[in-house]
Amino acid sequence: MVQSSSGPTFTPLVVVELTSDAKREAVEWLLSRIRDQQQAGGAELLVEQLAPAVGAQEKENPNVFVVGASRQRLLSGAEEVGLFKEFSDGSMRTFTCSNKHNFRDFEGDGDSFLSMAECQFIIKHELDTLRAKDETHVPGYAQVKLYPGKSIVRRLQSKGILIQMFPLHEKEELKRLSFSWYKRVKLSFQPLDDIRHYYGEGLAFYFGFLEYFTFALAPMALIGVPYYLFDWEDYDKYVLFAVFNLIWCTVILEFWKRCSASLAYRWGTLSRKKAFEEPRPGFHGVLGFNPVTGREEPLYPNAKRHLRIYLVSLPFVLLCLYLSLYVMMVYFQMEGWALNVHDEEPTFWTGVLLFIPSVIYAVVIEVMNLIYRYAAEFLTEWENHRLESSYQNHLVLKVLVFNFFNCFASLFYIAFAMQDMVLLRQSLATLLITSQILNQFMEAFLPYWLQRRRNKKMIHKVQRRRTLEDREFPLAEQVRLEAEMSTYLGTFDDYLEQFLLFGYVSLFSCVYPLAAVLVLLNNVTEVYSDAFKMCRVFKRPFSDPAANIGVWQLAFEAMSVIAVVTNFALIGLSPQVKAYFPESDTQLILWTVAIEHGLLAFKFILTFLIPDVPKHIQIKLSRLEFQSLEALKKKVEQRLLDASPAL
Amino acid sequence: MVQSSSGPTFTPLVVVELTSDAKREAVEWLLSRIRDQQQAGGAELLVEQLAPAVGAQEKENPNVFVVGASRQRLLSGAEEVGLFKEFSDGSMRTFTCSNKHNFRDFEGDGDSFLSMAECQFIIKHELDTLRAKDETHVPGYAQVKLYPGKSIVRRLQSKGILIQMFPLHEKEELKRLSFSWYKRVKLSFQPLDDIRHYYGEGLAFYFGFLEYFTFALAPMALIGVPYYLFDWEDYDKYVLFAVFNLIWCTVILEFWKRCSASLAYRWGTLSRKKAFEEPRPGFHGVLGFNPVTGREEPLYPNAKRHLRIYLVSLPFVLLCLYLSLYVMMVYFQMEGWALNVHDEEPTFWTGVLLFIPSVIYAVVIEVMNLIYRYAAEFLTEWENHRLESSYQNHLVLKVLVFNFFNCFASLFYIAFAMQDMVLLRQSLATLLITSQILNQFMEAFLPYWLQRRRNKKMIHKVQRRRTLEDREFPLAEQVRLEAEMSTYLGTFDDYLEQFLLFGYVSLFSCVYPLAAVLVLLNNVTEVYSDAFKMCRVFKRPFSDPAANIGVWQLAFEAMSVIAVVTNFALIGLSPQVKAYFPESDTQLILWTVAIEHGLLAFKFILTFLIPDVPKHIQIKLSRLEFQSLEALKKKVEQRLLDASPAL
Repeated sequence: MVQSSSGPTFTPLVVVELTSDAKREAVEWLLSRIRDQQQAGGAELLVEQLAPAVGAQEKENPNVFVVGASRQRLLSGAEEVGLFKEFSDGSMRTFTCSNKHNFRDFEGDGDSFLSMAECQFIIKHELDTLRAKDETHVPGYAQVKLYPGKSIVRRLQSKGILIQMFPLHEKEELKRLSFSWYKRVKLSFQPLDDIRHYYGEGLAFYFGFLEYFTFALAPMALIGVPYYLFDWEDYDKYVLFAVFNLIWCTVILEFWKRCSASLAYRWGTLSRKKAFEEPRPGFHGVLGFNPVTGREEPLYPNAKRHLRIYLVSLPFVLLCLYLSLYVMMVYFQMEGWALNVHDEEPTFWTGVLLFIPSVIYAVVIEVMNLIYRYAAEFLTEWENHRLESSYQNHLVLKVLVFNFFNCFASLFYIAFAMQDMVLLRQSLATLLITSQILNQFMEAFLPYWLQRRRNKKMIHKVQRRRTLEDREFPLAEQVRLEAEMSTYLGTFDDYLEQFLLFGYVSLFSCVYPLAAVLVLLNNVTEVYSDAFKMCRVFKRPFSDPAANIGVWQLAFEAMSVIAVVTNFALIGLSPQVKAYFPESDTQLILWTVAIEHGLLAFKFILTFLIPDVPKHIQIKLSRLEFQSLEALKKKVEQRLLDASPAL
Repeated sequence: MVQSSSGPTFTPLVVVELTSDAKREAVEWLLSRIRDQQQAGGAELLVEQLAPAVGAQEKENPNVFVVGASRQRLLSGAEEVGLFKEFSDGSMRTFTCSNKHNFRDFEGDGDSFLSMAECQFIIKHELDTLRAKDETHVPGYAQVKLYPGKSIVRRLQSKGILIQMFPLHEKEELKRLSFSWYKRVKLSFQPLDDIRHYYGEGLAFYFGFLEYFTFALAPMALIGVPYYLFDWEDYDKYVLFAVFNLIWCTVILEFWKRCSASLAYRWGTLSRKKAFEEPRPGFHGVLGFNPVTGREEPLYPNAKRHLRIYLVSLPFVLLCLYLSLYVMMVYFQMEGWALNVHDEEPTFWTGVLLFIPSVIYAVVIEVMNLIYRYAAEFLTEWENHRLESSYQNHLVLKVLVFNFFNCFASLFYIAFAMQDMVLLRQSLATLLITSQILNQFMEAFLPYWLQRRRNKKMIHKVQRRRTLEDREFPLAEQVRLEAEMSTYLGTFDDYLEQFLLFGYVSLFSCVYPLAAVLVLLNNVTEVYSDAFKMCRVFKRPFSDPAANIGVWQLAFEAMSVIAVVTNFALIGLSPQVKAYFPESDTQLILWTVAIEHGLLAFKFILTFLIPDVPKHIQIKLSRLEFQSLEALKKKVEQRLLDASPAL
């Protein structure tokens, strides 16, 4: 609890850090705008400067503030952001203050009604929508222009005056969560509801998907193991496996949709309306009137953006794809050279040499992916998208296409141009194992190690101070420690990794049945390492009320269509199938194509036939809709009744 | 105007006809329920028995009633059904009585605010939702059971006590409409807004689609004519045409979606919420509680319905498809026999004989379609669907599959099994022309002729009566005349016809470029004959607030995918393309398949890239949404302000 200068104590929820050299008047102005009453255009939140550590070195940034709010303010904020909560009858409904006592967990004053993550989300929303009134610039910064209706926080952020804004961890809660999540070896499911409670829906969906995908891999892995153990994989028997493969990848994605709808309903995000999206912080343009809101804000013509996309970004992406192809051809030359050396004089070392081109190629692919990622971010930023969602979609598309190409082009080349199933199998294994090891290392252990080093320094500092003063500043310490932690950049990389793993399994695993087993093992450890990095490595992220895994569902579905085509091509190449058409290749191809078309059609029909939302949730949703229609009807009838004497 | 027994005069809107031998108490009960106050569970409408024609013969049914409502009742009904009307700022909003003066065309008491079609739709809705209270059966009919909440009108309909319920034509309005629609030869567009005003959105969408499709055919026809005139169609040059064909069919469907969204926005149905659907009249089952409404109503287990669909309907459909195949093979035998005769001794008569099998086959196809249609309706009825929409979807699916098969199987057989392009061209021409002539005849002229005969009798009767009494009963006459007219069974057959025509053009027209011209000509006359039949042949249908062409959009899109595949197969067969791969058929097929897959992928990407709703309408919609969000926010802030002194 923090004693606010304006009076009441409050639980600190969000930390706002300004640059240490921020102008005094800008800071004062921001604080007063945050504290102002709502009808005066303020956010009506509680904000306090973080107590400066007594005896701290000069280097410590004094401009760190903690923000909280009164209970009443949080509840009205919950109504503003359109939070869904469980109603007394078990259904999920939009929370309204006037109706608050009819919500299930609302007891007394509603102290524990909102989770801390929800409170933090509300505060972030309130800060983000704090708008300039008649200021023309930020006080103290004549060059940082403002106009009525501009989000103050976004402007300060884009100008670097506001360094960061992050929600605080809850130590007790986190300890409990991490214990049930990854600290004990268990056969149970992840505590998804607790994850959602602590991190919000967006992240909970990622872990939900990770878990679902891992379980979905089990049948593939189970079938793959005997193939490997009993040496069934003589490149001849993989027809059966390919058929199983393509049914599997269609079905699991359809059922994930249902699973996802169930989760979203339970978490109250399924029928949540999206709030109106603000322009993203970096967006710039000429001032004009937004045709939707009527507010003055920067506008940037769509035509100009399209020019940038089609004349710069698209050629750049194509160039990168060409480069990736070039690297691939170099790899195949190296491979051929290594094979030659081994064939001439086979020793143990030349045997090792055989694997070296693959390992180098895998490393190069990872490095290229990394570099390309920065370029893609730069380009997408430069395309100047107005909305964060549109920025994300363009970034995802760019990165996906390149990653897909980079990871799978060589495999496609081996499979269809060289038609060498032995090499395909070997390359697949090398690529898969190398990229898994690299990923796990880059993703969790490297950041953890870096952060530990920072933390040690910090704790050392704090301890020295403590011995000096013998006084505790637990909150100040916590805030300074967390401010130093890395920022979690969202679920993008995590989903991307799963997408590529899904690709390895669905496209080619019939050639190397152990792929599913490897991916399964990877995902089991991935759950632990991802959980660990969320709890220990990163700042707490703001929760994000997602209703599904968004554009990734589409990406996975596109991959599953490509998988059907690839698997059929592999089947067509198999000696087993070729044996059925000994006299004519034409007949073989025509039949393969015909069956493939039939299966693609069947896949689309299946997508239609399996409802995206389970029946019992559909019933609950239509019940709510029906009730609101009935209520409207009653209201109309009542009005008619009131009016009728006047007729 | 009719003088109601309860007092006020009213405009008769809807006619309700009961059987002439309906029990007195049932009629009295129904009338009183229609007249009762809403708070007493009635519909609060005005209803009057049609004045019995003085001197009429006994044969005339006395149980014909006209229903109307007070202006106030119609307005509150408009709010209940969620009508969208144009607001003063030009946007479309849900009509509410409390806000009525802010709607554009609301003047004075709002006498001309609602169109007659809208009033009739409201009355139909009120009659349909008139529910039993505590009656256990219809008075006078102990065997016609009722239960609380059962729609009275639907029960009376399903038991045959209520024969029909239809809206009245407006003679003046109809005269104006038919003049601007089809009575003058013109180059202008159809008066779609007037059609919508008179017949409602569902029908206006059909005519809008018909017009759009006709215009979209123009480029195809323009390219087709020189092909025909200059004898370009030596089965060699059709590659270009096929490529054009498949781009054309993708693009026109995407643009229709945008066009349809524009129309729906203008007509206020784009963002209209669907009302809760009642069980359809024929639906039966064991009484239970509906999980959505909580009302007692018949329930029928889904599992049982699925058994009926998969164990009876599906095998039946497959059997019919087999039969259709059998008939096709017989046709080819006849064709071969005729060819033999002609080849042996070619005379003029054997030349004619060549066409006879095709003509017979075309007629047989039409007859089979007709018979199958009845069987499909019977089966779908027997499947006992709860909702009209689900019934319609299953019926459409059954009929579409069979019609598609029946019409196109022979063409596919000729194209791909026989690979005889000359025969394909000849069959296509015969099928197309025969089915067009048959259709136009069966659809408009036959019903018109039948109805004229009936009308003549009727007018004769009326005239005789008039000379007897020399008194006019214009309303009574109009009602009796219209009651005798045929009932328009919905847009199903009209869309089906367009679907098949679209199939002829998109699938095979590259072989017979004149197909597009023929379909274009057909559609130009179709506009006139359809307009004519709506204005003169049929009872006025109730308007139906559709937001798009529904399941037909999907059907047309499915056809366009099939068209891509078919066109590519035709390209692969063409001698031109074969000449590029002189040494290897395998290479040819692989390339064709690869390009086909690429184009299919491109088609799906195009579907994503072209937004379904035009930008300016998207802006209008999000403006409305933004405004409602802002209003909600203000309300919350106001409440907070009101509450704050109490804190």
